[in-house]
Amino acid sequence: MPSQASDQIFATLSRDPFAKSVGIEYQEMRPGYGRTAMTVTPQTLNAHGIPHGGAIFSLADSAFAAASNSHGQVAVALSMTMNFLATAPLGTRLVAEAQELRKGHRAGFYQITVKTEAGDLIAVCQAVVHRKKESILPAG
Amino acid sequence: MPSQASDQIFATLSRDPFAKSVGIEYQEMRPGYGRTAMTVTPQTLNAHGIPHGGAIFSLADSAFAAASNSHGQVAVALSMTMNFLATAPLGTRLVAEAQELRKGHRAGFYQITVKTEAGDLIAVCQAVVHRKKESILPAG
Amino acid sequence: MPSQASDQIFATLSRDPFAKSVGIEYQEMRPGYGRTAMTVTPQTLNAHGIPHGGAIFSLADSAFAAASNSHGQVAVALSMTMNFLATAPLGTRLVAEAQELRKGHRAGFYQITVKTEAGDLIAVCQAVVHRKKESILPAG
Amino acid sequence: MPSQASDQIFATLSRDPFAKSVGIEYQEMRPGYGRTAMTVTPQTLNAHGIPHGGAIFSLADSAFAAASNSHGQVAVALSMTMNFLATAPLGTRLVAEAQELRKGHRAGFYQITVKTEAGDLIAVCQAVVHRKKESILPAG
Repeated sequence: MPSQASDQIFATLSRDPFAKSVGIEYQEMRPGYGRTAMTVTPQTLNAHGIPHGGAIFSLADSAFAAASNSHGQVAVALSMTMNFLATAPLGTRLVAEAQELRKGHRAGFYQITVKTEAGDLIAVCQAVVHRKKESILPAG
Repeated sequence: MPSQASDQIFATLSRDPFAKSVGIEYQEMRPGYGRTAMTVTPQTLNAHGIPHGGAIFSLADSAFAAASNSHGQVAVALSMTMNFLATAPLGTRLVAEAQELRKGHRAGFYQITVKTEAGDLIAVCQAVVHRKKESILPAG
Repeated sequence: MPSQASDQIFATLSRDPFAKSVGIEYQEMRPGYGRTAMTVTPQTLNAHGIPHGGAIFSLADSAFAAASNSHGQVAVALSMTMNFLATAPLGTRLVAEAQELRKGHRAGFYQITVKTEAGDLIAVCQAVVHRKKESILPAG
Repeated sequence: MPSQASDQIFATLSRDPFAKSVGIEYQEMRPGYGRTAMTVTPQTLNAHGIPHGGAIFSLADSAFAAASNSHGQVAVALSMTMNFLATAPLGTRLVAEAQELRKGHRAGFYQITVKTEAGDLIAVCQAVVHRKKESILPAG
């Protein structure tokens, strides 16, 4: 894929209102790879005072969106399994990386990790998409 | 559990900053059961213009938190698997219900559904918690 | 689907060497539904003397195969999540039932339960398939 | 753990009637790690003539059992998510490796891969156990 198309896809994916409202930043996208980051703020906590599972999932899901849409076709998530290994205190910087394990004709398989900047594993995720025929970028 | 304690647990869980910021309402909690709701707003959309997987997951996770903490012990999510069956247009009212399948000594198993008000299935989730010894409510 | 085609599909699926070797019986198949059964024998136990997770999974997977192939197109499993709620003693009769939650154009979503004959829940499973264009039955 | 105890645990786990009946070999166990192998035989096939999901799962589950019981305490599987990336023809040698991602006080988290000898990924699995207090080896 020409680098310009890749830049356009990344720009399109990054216009993600939900991710923005949660404080998630799209950092990098390459074919089969995506990375996002966020900081654990008071807004991302649940009633126990630890990061809400939904916030951590959203971070991982956004990295997964970058990786799975990186080839230019619209990818739709079918299944995601999130295992929560550890929690992270307020102020922690979290980084999610999604890696494509296999790109089938229609299906795509991904592994996503959520780590602290120090490299401690917070969560791992396995995910599957269905890749549609339609392109992310408008024709023309 | 006395109804008053149950009310206090529900009040405690509902003070959930992340859920609030996403627009998720805690609606009901009974032993082994939780229900939450939210409306698909522009803020909950992703770059494709459909609800972000993280928003739907957060709704389900909050219902799961209500159900799994309903017995008064702190429950920590270990694993959640979310299958995304359908999407929902802007303005749709989504309701998540979490049901306890089994309450073991330490582990707890849950099934969560996300539906439209019309009853259409949007997502299903299976989840497992580890129940700690500590109580949600402060002693005394 | 004509009932005769359905009978042929069921007969084809039931010729399942692995299921047979494990002691799994294909019991029923209707559009979107499948049921299998097996008895916990010494052969199905693991080193702890309880049913091997692989035996319980295989029972569920076979019911899932019946349900997901019931429409006549070849279905390929993409993802399965199995939660193990309880164990079952030697001699227990186990029944797995798979129910289709949604049949998309290409994807299919299923819920599978494994229960004792008394109705006690042993395991629950969520699963997703990709449906191919090719038919299970030979053309002609 | 003394190497002798480790050898005894491995010997105990390897006495696995179900794994044996499926043709699964326990190959190696170290703290937090387990490896098993099997060959795709006619017995392991399903009705479509490809390896039964239950056979592949059983191979992964056995490696997971080795890894999760490697510390000497009995580990009970709570949840396993299996993603099926590719199939493997008759005669293929399959190897499953389970790696511990985190060993909590009670919970344990694992990643399992199933590969051909050539290193092609057939399936990936995420799994969680609850670790009991009781020891695998008899006291004394």
